[in-house]
Amino acid sequence: MKFNNRNVCISPRSKIGSNVRIGDNTVVYDNVEIGDNSIICNDVVLGEPLGTYYRDPDYTNPLCSIGANSVIRSHSIIYAGSRIGAAFSCGHQALIREKCTIGEHCSVGSLTDLEGEITIGNYSRIHSNVHISQRTVIGSYIWISPFVVVTHDPYPPSYDWKGSSIGDYTQVCVNAVILPGVQIGKKCVIGAGAVVNKSLKDFSLVIPAPSRIMDVRKYVVMGKGRVYPWMNRFDRGMPWEGIGYDTWIRQSGGAE
Amino acid sequence: MKFNNRNVCISPRSKIGSNVRIGDNTVVYDNVEIGDNSIICNDVVLGEPLGTYYRDPDYTNPLCSIGANSVIRSHSIIYAGSRIGAAFSCGHQALIREKCTIGEHCSVGSLTDLEGEITIGNYSRIHSNVHISQRTVIGSYIWISPFVVVTHDPYPPSYDWKGSSIGDYTQVCVNAVILPGVQIGKKCVIGAGAVVNKSLKDFSLVIPAPSRIMDVRKYVVMGKGRVYPWMNRFDRGMPWEGIGYDTWIRQSGGAE
Amino acid sequence: MKFNNRNVCISPRSKIGSNVRIGDNTVVYDNVEIGDNSIICNDVVLGEPLGTYYRDPDYTNPLCSIGANSVIRSHSIIYAGSRIGAAFSCGHQALIREKCTIGEHCSVGSLTDLEGEITIGNYSRIHSNVHISQRTVIGSYIWISPFVVVTHDPYPPSYDWKGSSIGDYTQVCVNAVILPGVQIGKKCVIGAGAVVNKSLKDFSLVIPAPSRIMDVRKYVVMGKGRVYPWMNRFDRGMPWEGIGYDTWIRQSGGAE
Repeated sequence: MKFNNRNVCISPRSKIGSNVRIGDNTVVYDNVEIGDNSIICNDVVLGEPLGTYYRDPDYTNPLCSIGANSVIRSHSIIYAGSRIGAAFSCGHQALIREKCTIGEHCSVGSLTDLEGEITIGNYSRIHSNVHISQRTVIGSYIWISPFVVVTHDPYPPSYDWKGSSIGDYTQVCVNAVILPGVQIGKKCVIGAGAVVNKSLKDFSLVIPAPSRIMDVRKYVVMGKGRVYPWMNRFDRGMPWEGIGYDTWIRQSGGAE
Repeated sequence: MKFNNRNVCISPRSKIGSNVRIGDNTVVYDNVEIGDNSIICNDVVLGEPLGTYYRDPDYTNPLCSIGANSVIRSHSIIYAGSRIGAAFSCGHQALIREKCTIGEHCSVGSLTDLEGEITIGNYSRIHSNVHISQRTVIGSYIWISPFVVVTHDPYPPSYDWKGSSIGDYTQVCVNAVILPGVQIGKKCVIGAGAVVNKSLKDFSLVIPAPSRIMDVRKYVVMGKGRVYPWMNRFDRGMPWEGIGYDTWIRQSGGAE
Repeated sequence: MKFNNRNVCISPRSKIGSNVRIGDNTVVYDNVEIGDNSIICNDVVLGEPLGTYYRDPDYTNPLCSIGANSVIRSHSIIYAGSRIGAAFSCGHQALIREKCTIGEHCSVGSLTDLEGEITIGNYSRIHSNVHISQRTVIGSYIWISPFVVVTHDPYPPSYDWKGSSIGDYTQVCVNAVILPGVQIGKKCVIGAGAVVNKSLKDFSLVIPAPSRIMDVRKYVVMGKGRVYPWMNRFDRGMPWEGIGYDTWIRQSGGAE
């Protein structure tokens, strides 16, 4: 039901391999090449034009290639000028900007944003909700977790972008930040929430300063309201709306 | 103007309740059930097929149900195999994967990504830009703020996923990270930016190590460029482009 | 190829300036005004109706204005009731809610979420994947990096929202969190991953507690599995699938 040829727009100047399926509402621009047996789902944009497209009447779309046996899930946007190897897979609503070079057997998760001019080796997996800045070099067999951000501008804004690199087999855990120009070695682990502000040799582990655990009932915030309990101060849309939490607990016999 | 029946695609094998409105460009797949009085906005996908759909000719779409009186905002994608209770509301561009079970009176914000196999109780609110991993169990009356991430793989990549759980009435603040297999008690507060790496009993508060405050005029970054001031080194698109910040301040009489 | 007038829907009660281009699948609702020479790409929604639209038969869409010479990239959603100045530019899949007032020469990146009731001066740049809460006041010449979140509820959930403000020329780096009601002065730098929990005078720099660097080969996680090496425990989709990493390294002559 995804492939009804409904509201589809495919440029005659694209090359579609054999046994390729293209979903409804999808657009394939000029100079896109899709390898055999690939599946392009609905509402996808392949070969999204660069900025000059809008103002330059002589604009020509750079080549965008997707390797064989790939799956591009719905609502993803892949720019002209990026080249992606075989057996690629991509989540929903992903954004891959121009001049990315991605090897074989890689994947990119939903809502992930590759900002362009990024090189990725083979067999590397980037999960959902990741942001990778321009000029980043990512090796092979690398795992990048959600909400990781790799930066490139050492003191934004500047003209002095410094891409970072990540060595083979390295694992980067959720919410980690890699600062500009940092060279991360092979087989490193960047822990959840760590901020990497210097280059790391092979086998490095980085973990953030530990959080503290307290009793919430003793904690006051902003010098005024207490963080806890919220149930006595807020009722919109809650089952105790208009009657108060304590009354509701009593009436409903709910466990406090 | 959202409901013109333009480019809509509804499977005859879906069950649409009475007084349901379905927006333009929306797709409803096989075996989707929508409760009475619900509003499905434009460009929504309900019952998105699982991965086997693409290669298996005998694929059957699992049931996807949306309770009565729900509102699904535009560009959201809800997979086949997820069941959502009544009075649900959902922001734009949200993604809810397969095998989620969500109770009544819950909400999910824009750009939030529920990765599948997630259980949520009643009256729980998940804000925008949140990422919840598989096998997470979320109780009732829970508030989850933007950019929270709940993980499930203790040492990615592994086959040893450990879902986390969050107890009733707990508040999870922005950018908090919950590590795999962590059991968070009831009525806890997870502070902004905290990384939770162990299970917590009821009434726990977790806050991250404090940030330090300094004077930016004394701070040098990367051994070269100064973080501040940026105005003297960068002018693209700024009103001082080509003339320099100091000249522009003098000419415009702008306050430094 | 983006402007074929395919599946476009423009309200007759909108005002479109001269030399405006509107992309395929785009919707322009009632009371939208678009300035001269602007480009509205494909799959954009301008003037997205407010919540009352769905249930109130007398609903009238508030004014939504986009200044001249602006570019709105594909799949972005801008609500009714927001006013944006000239020379605005916007990435893909951005979301700008109601009652935002944005000055001239500003930009908003892809997948960024402005939650409404936000004021932004002139020449300010908000990058991709940013989340700004209601009632935030952002000055001019400000740079906000990816995954920054500005909050507004001091102890969620509450009815006591406190918008934060950011002074002119301030730089906010990736993953920084600004807590509710914080007033940040002019020409400050908020470092990557910093949590700002108090107001800051001009020229302040905030940086998070430092992460620690260790040797990953000595580190055990969760009392059970080792973080490193993952290659011996996980092989799905990897070139050593079924034969083991050590055998594959030996056979392929790959460098360990």
